[in-house]
Amino acid sequence: MSLTTITVKMSQFWSKLVHELVPYTPGEQPQIDGLIKLNTNENPYGPSPKVLAAIAAANSDTLRKYPDPNASHLKQALAADSGLDINQVFVGNSSDEVLAHVFKGLLKQDAPLLFPDLTYSFYPVYCKLFEIDSVQVPLDENFEIDIDAYDQECGGIIFANPNAPTGIALPLSKIRLLARRHPNRVLVIDEAYVDFARESAVSLISEFDNILVTQTFSKSRSLAGLRVGMAYGQAHLIEALERVKNSFHPYALDSLALAGATASLQDNNYFTQCIERINQTRAKTISSLEAIGFNVLPSQANFILARHQTQAASELFTFLRSNKIIVRHFAHPRINNFLRISIGSDDEMQTLVDVLSERCRSTS
Amino acid sequence: MSLTTITVKMSQFWSKLVHELVPYTPGEQPQIDGLIKLNTNENPYGPSPKVLAAIAAANSDTLRKYPDPNASHLKQALAADSGLDINQVFVGNSSDEVLAHVFKGLLKQDAPLLFPDLTYSFYPVYCKLFEIDSVQVPLDENFEIDIDAYDQECGGIIFANPNAPTGIALPLSKIRLLARRHPNRVLVIDEAYVDFARESAVSLISEFDNILVTQTFSKSRSLAGLRVGMAYGQAHLIEALERVKNSFHPYALDSLALAGATASLQDNNYFTQCIERINQTRAKTISSLEAIGFNVLPSQANFILARHQTQAASELFTFLRSNKIIVRHFAHPRINNFLRISIGSDDEMQTLVDVLSERCRSTS
Repeated sequence: MSLTTITVKMSQFWSKLVHELVPYTPGEQPQIDGLIKLNTNENPYGPSPKVLAAIAAANSDTLRKYPDPNASHLKQALAADSGLDINQVFVGNSSDEVLAHVFKGLLKQDAPLLFPDLTYSFYPVYCKLFEIDSVQVPLDENFEIDIDAYDQECGGIIFANPNAPTGIALPLSKIRLLARRHPNRVLVIDEAYVDFARESAVSLISEFDNILVTQTFSKSRSLAGLRVGMAYGQAHLIEALERVKNSFHPYALDSLALAGATASLQDNNYFTQCIERINQTRAKTISSLEAIGFNVLPSQANFILARHQTQAASELFTFLRSNKIIVRHFAHPRINNFLRISIGSDDEMQTLVDVLSERCRSTS
Repeated sequence: MSLTTITVKMSQFWSKLVHELVPYTPGEQPQIDGLIKLNTNENPYGPSPKVLAAIAAANSDTLRKYPDPNASHLKQALAADSGLDINQVFVGNSSDEVLAHVFKGLLKQDAPLLFPDLTYSFYPVYCKLFEIDSVQVPLDENFEIDIDAYDQECGGIIFANPNAPTGIALPLSKIRLLARRHPNRVLVIDEAYVDFARESAVSLISEFDNILVTQTFSKSRSLAGLRVGMAYGQAHLIEALERVKNSFHPYALDSLALAGATASLQDNNYFTQCIERINQTRAKTISSLEAIGFNVLPSQANFILARHQTQAASELFTFLRSNKIIVRHFAHPRINNFLRISIGSDDEMQTLVDVLSERCRSTS
């Protein structure tokens, strides 16, 4: 069988759209002993002991039963935590899934969706999947969102805030302006990293009927392994997401994820302490890297985007890997001389700085 | 604010399609003490103790990390269990999610999808969600699939086998014929209940490049609470599902679900024993119901579809509910005089039969 025959066979049964998909490339999850893994913005600290206890309690014969399709307990806990009503809260199997429903249910419109040229790289993938036109609006020369650049006809706006992979946060005052300038379009603020930042757009929801905020348990709540994400917005926006979700899979969250996520919200003390530690480590890491010749963007996330003044990022990436440290390097031309480095534990970051100091000293 | 204003406000931000969605209605999950719940085909027996042990082992600090996006261990275990290669196996967050990807990735074609007028009621919901034309092909007068009725132009064929809510299975010999008659279209066999039946279409996969089989851990493996489903097919079909999934959410299964599902496949002894018990209870229940005036379709699933010769199903449904027994009653005109009753434990089914005997004696 020739290669051509195989290719034809591979695709003749596919829906037309499948040929055009360009799936998202997640950061790798290698299983290597002693690896320092700073590539997917995982929390260096485990989840609250109360989370583990709640999961242990749910790990029983009752797994034979379906979970609550409405996730009522979890939604109630999120509503209480955020000061919103339960019908202003949506949950899904990861914030990626929540975002998928947002694209399908709110952002597919008769005008193009706007998002920054540098932001969560899943957005263009969703646009392909749901056949949504989009325009990428360049970040300014400081890698910041310029809200005036969004003064154009659009079907909606989405960006991560703090933005990824820059770590830079757009202040609420500017989000307010954007929402006012586009009163008939939904403005989606993807707050995957907001707990490491100074302010959240959730406080704007009572004021704006067109702001939707997505968040996740994966980073600040140390539960990437549990796949729980959420969205906050006025009830009419949440209703669109519920309709899509209940046309896709009604029981999106399993019983263990529901139990663990709900318990996490009942231990905000532990949560706050972890965040403080990570933010302190972030400040210390930035200082250390600047001292050996790095420029670091002002991050409000649990990662930093850093460029060395003389060393090529691609070479530093390979060098770190050979020292069992993995970080993320993106091919996008505007940032291909940067490394995105997750904030790990103090020890992990000290090892990173030591390894990089050695390299930067020996070659400069 | 008038009702009209509210309605307009509710919808102005939605994607056009959202207005047209008719979400699936899952069986209710009421929290009532002492309830006998025979409405969602849950297994009366809990999962294998090995499943609980594997979940307990995974319930640790490692939840801070992302799960394996490729679910390699689970896929390997499924491949070994089914005698297929790993690239012939797909997994997702419930078989509902797997089916959603199947509709999007394989069944959206330039001709209508065919499925029975009576089958899993989620299929028309997916057709709306993914804008797929469909034709519902009536089951014959015995509620069986008549494969000759599928001799028409189509973009694909899907049905549950054993079918739901009838419980009746189409023999493999007829599936083989169907697959041969539609060599350029995908034939999807939704085997959610196959472990309670005599034969699976997985054995046809090596022979047919157009057969895709979906299954679930929810029923026979007692893991409805864990949300794990799978699909089997030749690699070119699986590749379409992977592309859609990796454009939707790469980490579909959480770490606990991966651990539990994988462990379930390592205890087939327990699994087989539970199925034997349920099938014995099914046979006994059918005899008992027939003795009090019910006609029961010949089920190969863990539920039965039964009609009383004189009592209206809607009244029996209400009567059972007032006795703290919930079953399922569908509005579809062809079966609105039937009840779908999940097979519970021997005790639960005995209570059901006792309660119904009382009623059928007192009013006949």
